[in-house]
Amino acid sequence: MGVSDDQSKLASIIFSNLLRNHGEGILKASVYPLNPSHASIGDQKCYPSLDSLPEVPELVVVAVPASLAVSVVKDAARAGARAALVITGGFAEAGKKDLEQEMWAAAKKRGMRILGPNTIGLLDTSSGVDSLFLPATKKLETGREVVSLLKPFKGGVVVITQSGHLGEIVSEELAANGVGLRALVGTGNQLDVSVEDIIGYFADDYLTKVIAIYLEGIKNGRRFISAASAAARNKPVIVFKMGKTRAGALAALTHTASLVGDYEVYKAAFREAGVVEAESLQELVDYCVTFSFLHQRPGRRLLISTNAGGVGAVAADEAERDGLDIRSLSRETAKAVRSCLGKASFASTMTLSNPLDLTATVTTESFAKATEKALASPDFDMAVVLPTHQTPAIGADISEQMAESILRTSKPACVCVMGSAELAKMIHEDFLRRGIPSFPTPERAVRALAALSSYPVLRSGSRRPSAVSTSDRARFITGANGPLPPKMIERLLSEYDIPHPRSVLVGPDAGLAKPRGLRFPVACKLVSSDMLHKTEAGGVILEVPDSEGLAIVSRRLRQLATRLRIKFDGVLVQEMSSPGIELLLGSTRDKVFGPTIVLGAGGKYTELVRDYSLAIAPLSIDDARNLISNTKVGQLLSGYRGGPPVRILGLARIISRFSRILIENPSIEQIEVNPLIASEDGITAVDVRAVTRFP
Amino acid sequence: MGVSDDQSKLASIIFSNLLRNHGEGILKASVYPLNPSHASIGDQKCYPSLDSLPEVPELVVVAVPASLAVSVVKDAARAGARAALVITGGFAEAGKKDLEQEMWAAAKKRGMRILGPNTIGLLDTSSGVDSLFLPATKKLETGREVVSLLKPFKGGVVVITQSGHLGEIVSEELAANGVGLRALVGTGNQLDVSVEDIIGYFADDYLTKVIAIYLEGIKNGRRFISAASAAARNKPVIVFKMGKTRAGALAALTHTASLVGDYEVYKAAFREAGVVEAESLQELVDYCVTFSFLHQRPGRRLLISTNAGGVGAVAADEAERDGLDIRSLSRETAKAVRSCLGKASFASTMTLSNPLDLTATVTTESFAKATEKALASPDFDMAVVLPTHQTPAIGADISEQMAESILRTSKPACVCVMGSAELAKMIHEDFLRRGIPSFPTPERAVRALAALSSYPVLRSGSRRPSAVSTSDRARFITGANGPLPPKMIERLLSEYDIPHPRSVLVGPDAGLAKPRGLRFPVACKLVSSDMLHKTEAGGVILEVPDSEGLAIVSRRLRQLATRLRIKFDGVLVQEMSSPGIELLLGSTRDKVFGPTIVLGAGGKYTELVRDYSLAIAPLSIDDARNLISNTKVGQLLSGYRGGPPVRILGLARIISRFSRILIENPSIEQIEVNPLIASEDGITAVDVRAVTRFP
Repeated sequence: MGVSDDQSKLASIIFSNLLRNHGEGILKASVYPLNPSHASIGDQKCYPSLDSLPEVPELVVVAVPASLAVSVVKDAARAGARAALVITGGFAEAGKKDLEQEMWAAAKKRGMRILGPNTIGLLDTSSGVDSLFLPATKKLETGREVVSLLKPFKGGVVVITQSGHLGEIVSEELAANGVGLRALVGTGNQLDVSVEDIIGYFADDYLTKVIAIYLEGIKNGRRFISAASAAARNKPVIVFKMGKTRAGALAALTHTASLVGDYEVYKAAFREAGVVEAESLQELVDYCVTFSFLHQRPGRRLLISTNAGGVGAVAADEAERDGLDIRSLSRETAKAVRSCLGKASFASTMTLSNPLDLTATVTTESFAKATEKALASPDFDMAVVLPTHQTPAIGADISEQMAESILRTSKPACVCVMGSAELAKMIHEDFLRRGIPSFPTPERAVRALAALSSYPVLRSGSRRPSAVSTSDRARFITGANGPLPPKMIERLLSEYDIPHPRSVLVGPDAGLAKPRGLRFPVACKLVSSDMLHKTEAGGVILEVPDSEGLAIVSRRLRQLATRLRIKFDGVLVQEMSSPGIELLLGSTRDKVFGPTIVLGAGGKYTELVRDYSLAIAPLSIDDARNLISNTKVGQLLSGYRGGPPVRILGLARIISRFSRILIENPSIEQIEVNPLIASEDGITAVDVRAVTRFP
Repeated sequence: MGVSDDQSKLASIIFSNLLRNHGEGILKASVYPLNPSHASIGDQKCYPSLDSLPEVPELVVVAVPASLAVSVVKDAARAGARAALVITGGFAEAGKKDLEQEMWAAAKKRGMRILGPNTIGLLDTSSGVDSLFLPATKKLETGREVVSLLKPFKGGVVVITQSGHLGEIVSEELAANGVGLRALVGTGNQLDVSVEDIIGYFADDYLTKVIAIYLEGIKNGRRFISAASAAARNKPVIVFKMGKTRAGALAALTHTASLVGDYEVYKAAFREAGVVEAESLQELVDYCVTFSFLHQRPGRRLLISTNAGGVGAVAADEAERDGLDIRSLSRETAKAVRSCLGKASFASTMTLSNPLDLTATVTTESFAKATEKALASPDFDMAVVLPTHQTPAIGADISEQMAESILRTSKPACVCVMGSAELAKMIHEDFLRRGIPSFPTPERAVRALAALSSYPVLRSGSRRPSAVSTSDRARFITGANGPLPPKMIERLLSEYDIPHPRSVLVGPDAGLAKPRGLRFPVACKLVSSDMLHKTEAGGVILEVPDSEGLAIVSRRLRQLATRLRIKFDGVLVQEMSSPGIELLLGSTRDKVFGPTIVLGAGGKYTELVRDYSLAIAPLSIDDARNLISNTKVGQLLSGYRGGPPVRILGLARIISRFSRILIENPSIEQIEVNPLIASEDGITAVDVRAVTRFP
C-alpha cells in the first residue's frame, strides 16, 4: 500500500524488492501494488483498494503515513488478510499510543496479526518476503554509484532486533563474514507480535540454526524465558542486551530492591533461559559466526597454538579470564608434537607447553602438523590458533594447510589473523571460506570459543519458571498498603515453615514485665507502621539481659518514637539467636519478570559488600543450592577460615519455600529477611520486613 | 654483520633496508656490510671484520647465530662502537643466560649500550635506522606477489614493545588508520636497554607525540614509574599490560599478600605514573589513533549525536559504564539545535535529549548542523557522532559535511561508522583523512573519548615514589627470619606513632594474676612463633572479664598450643578496644615495585569482601586520603547508614606513617594490621603481625 513511481519512497522500494524476489522465484506468492491514484506501476496493474484485489491477501505491507495506515490496517482486517506488516512510524514512540491501539483493536477482532508499527520489518530469505527499504547503492558527487548495503544471503541465522538499524548492521557483518541469514525481523513497537512470539516461531523452524537477538527491553519476562529456553534446547540463542547500567533505585523500600539493578534481573533470566549472552554488538556477530561454523559442543580445555609468544600470552590471559582450562600438553602429546617439528635446531630444546609457542622459526607445514597433533590428542576439546604470517618462515598457504589440519581433527577451532596488509585480508577470508571462524584479535577468538563451550552447560541448566498464582495460604493478609505488621509476618513465616525466633509484641499500653514464654537475653525492636529500617534509627536494642533492662529499653524506644515523630505501635521482644553467618534473603517483584529472589551477605554491610546472587522465583531445592553456590557467602557457609559448616540443604529448603511467598501472594510486594542467621545450630529469620500493595 | 647474497637471511634484509634508506636520504649515515667470506654484496664493498672498516661504527647490527654474536659484540666494544643492536635470539629466553652476560660484561667495560638480544630491533622513521627483517611481500601459489606488511610512515607515535610481533601489528594498524610512526622499538631480553630507558629517551624527544607500550613485565618498578610519570607530564603514555589474571598466591603469609595479585600492583603503578591504560591490544591502537588526531584535553561531558536510536543507546550505555557525563541539552542549546532541523514534520515534535537522536528522517546537512550547534554549546566538552549512512536521507558526503562541522567547533569528537559495504569503508577512511578518529563500533568510539578525557586527570595525579632507604628508627629489629615477636611489634608501632591498645605479654612460665596497668575486660592471644593467624585456630579469646577468667583462658591457650603441636611462647593480654569499623592496613614488598600499601575492609570477611585499594609506598597524607576514598569502606568511615563518622585526616596520617615502615626497614617483609579499628573515639591497631626476612 502506497506504491508509486517515485523510487525513493519506502513503499516503492519494498514493492520492487518483492517483485524482484517473485521474478527470481524466491517469493512464491503474488504481489499487488495498491494506490488509488495510479492505474499501473511500471508494467504492473495497480489496484485502488484492498477490495479490488483478485484474491484475499495473506500479508499487507503498510508504508503510508500514520493517519492513513490506521484505515489501511482496518480495511485489511475487514478484507480477511492474515497479517499486516506496518513499517510506518509516528505511533506510540511519538506519543500517539491511541492511534496504534485503534489499529490493534480492529485487527484483534478479525484475528489478524500485526508486526510493527515503526519497524524495518522482515527479510525472510526462505519465503522471499523482504520489506527492507534501505537503498542498495548511493551516488557519489562524482556520479559514481557505490554499494551502500551488503545484501545478506540465504543461511541459518535469524536476527531478531528491537533496533532496525542495528539489526541491519548485524546482517551486513554476517554477510561480510560469509554467514548466511535465515531471517531478519525488526519488532518495532511490538503492538502485537513480540520478541517472545518471534523466538517461539523460529524455535521450531528447522531451517534456523542460530537465533541472535538485539534486546532493549521486553514486556512479559516469564513468556520470554519460556520461549527462549524452549528454543535454546534445540539451537543456540544469543542475546545482546542494551541498557546494562544500574537503575539508581535510591528510594527503594528494602535493601534487596536497592541492591539489584534491572539488568541483573535480565542476566538471571538469560541464565535460566539457557541463552548465550554477548557483551557487545561485536560479540553478537562474533558468536553468530562461531555458532554457524562450528557445530561441536566442546568442553572447556583449550589449546593455544601460535608461532609468536606475545599473542599467545594475550590469548592465555583472556582464556583465564573466561574460565577456560589451559592445561599443559601431556607427555605423550608433547612427544607427538615434537615429532612434527623435524630436525630444526630449535625443535630439540623447545619446551612445549600451553600456549604451544612454536616460535617464529617454525615452517607452515610443521606449524599445521604440530597443531593437528596437539588438538587431536585427548588433552584438548578445542583450539585457538594464532598464526603470524608476517614471519619469513610462514607461506601464504598457511590458511589452506592450517584449515585442513584443523578440520581433520573434527574439533572446533578459531583463528586470529592480525595485520592490515593485503595478505592478512586474504588469509582471513580464506579461513572463513574453509569454515574456520577468523577474528582480528586474540581476545575475540578466545571469547568466541568460551561462548561455544558455555552453551552445553547453559542449555542443560535452562528451566521455565512457573506462572504467578494465588494461594489460599495467606488469605489472612489484609489491611492497608505499606509495611506488614509483625504479627502477620510471624504467621506468614509459620505458613511457609521458615524458622524464626520466638517473640512477643508488647503493645504500647501493656505493662513492662517479662513476656511469657521467652528466655532472656532478648532483643527489643521498636514497632511502627511508619518505619521500615529500624537499625539505622537506633530502634533495635540487642542483648537485653533481664526484666529490669526490658523496662528501661521499652521506655527508651517509646521516647525514640516521640523524637522521630513516628507512631509507637509497641515493642517486639524476641529471643536472641545464637551467633552465626548473617545472610540476606529477599524477594521483590520485578516489573518485567515478576517475583525474584536475592540471597547475599546480610547484616550491616549488605550494600557495601554487594555479594549476592539473583534468580527468578520460584526456586526448587536444586535451584536454591545453585543460588547459594553463586554467592561468595556460600564459601563461608561451607566452613570458611575455620568457621563451622552450615547445613546447605536445610538452607536450600528454606529458600525454596520462601521463594513461593511472592508467587502465591499477589498482595506482597517485597519481603526481606536480614539477617537470616545461619549457624551450626540451624537457620533463623531474625529480622523480617515486608511491604504490601493490594491490587 | 652476517650480510650475504641470500635475500631471505635476516642480516641481508636489514642491510637492504638501511641501504635503501641511505639512498633515499632518510638515513644520514654510512652503511657497511660485514662478512669475512664475501668481497662484495651487490655493488657494495663487503668488509671482513670491524677492524677493516674505514671508520668506527656508531651502531653495529648483529644478526648472526648466538655463539658468533657474542664475539661480534666483543669486537664491536673493542672497536669503540657506541651501541649494538642484537637481533639474534637463543640467549636467556632459551636458558643461555651466561652467553648474554658474557656479551654484557664486554660492552659495559667499554661503555657500549646493547638493545636486545632476541629482538625485532628498531625502526626509527626520523633517523632512518631500520632493523625490521620481516619480508614486505610474499608469493602466492599462483606466483603473484602480495603485500604482507603494511609499512609505517613518518609520524609522532612511538611503539615500545616486549613482543616484536605485537609491536609490528600495532605499527601496521596505525598505518592502516592513517597514523604515522616516530619509532618502533622491540626491547627483547633487556640485557641493557630497558623499557624504562626507552621511555626516558622519547619523553624528551620533541618529535614524539604519543608513547604506546606493550608490556609483559618490568624489572625495576620504581624506575618505570619515574620514567613514565616524567613522560606522561609532556605527552600521553598509553600502556597495555599483558598478564592480568591473578597469581594464585595461596601460600601467602598475610591476608594482604593473598589479596593482591601482581597485576593490581601494576595497575596502582600505572595510576601513579599518570599513564593511560588500555584493556586490550585493540584499545592500545584505538587510543594511539585518538591521541594522535585529537590534541584537546576535554572534560567528561559527552554529547552523543545520532540518526539511529539503537546505536545511540549502546553508546550511552558505554558512556555510563565509563563514568562520562551524558547530561541533557540545555534549553538554549535545544532551541539552537531545533532551528537547524528546518520545517520537516518530525522536527517540531521531536524531543531533544542526549543521546541526540535526530531519527532516520534527518538529512545530511541538518544532521551536521545540529551536531555542530550542540557540540559548540557550553553544555559539552566532546562528542561521539554515530552517523547511519544506510538511511535514504543521508548522502555519501556525510563524512565531508560532518567532519567540517566538527572541526569548526574545535572540540574533540570520534565517530562510529558501521556497515561492511564499500560506502562504509569510504566514509570511514574519509573521516580519518579529515583527522576525525573513526571506529566500527559505538563502544570503541566512546571508550576512546573516555581515555582522552581521563588523561588530564591522570597526568595531574602522577607522582614519583621515593626510593627505598634504611632508617635508624628500627635498628632494634633483630632475630631470625619469621614472625616478628609481639614486643618488637609494639615498639615498632610506637616508633611510627600508630595507636595500639595497651598490652602485656605473659610468658609461658609466669603466673596468672592480672597483668599490671591493664583494665578489664581484656583480650587474650596465644603467642607462638609457629603461628601467624590466630583467629582461625581459636587462639584469640575476647572479652575476658576478670582475673579468674584470665586464669582459665591462659590454661586453655596453653592446651591449644599443645594440641596444635606448636610452641607456646605465652599469652598476649590486651585491653579491649571500643567497637568500630574494622579495617585492614597492610604493607608487602612487591618483587617489581617494592613496598606497597593496602587498605581495605578488615575483620573476618576481609578476603570475602575483597574491598581494598592499593598504592605504592610511601604515601603522603594526601595520597593516603585518596587511598581511603578509593575503597568502599571509605563510605562507612564518613558515616554510613547512621554510623558515626571517623576522622579521615587522623586515619590518613596513620596510613602515611605506616607506609614508611617497609620503606625504612629492609628486614621487614610484610606487616599487617587487621583489624585496625576506627571509631568516633579514634583509631587503634588491634592485631598486628609482621614477618621479617633479614638480608
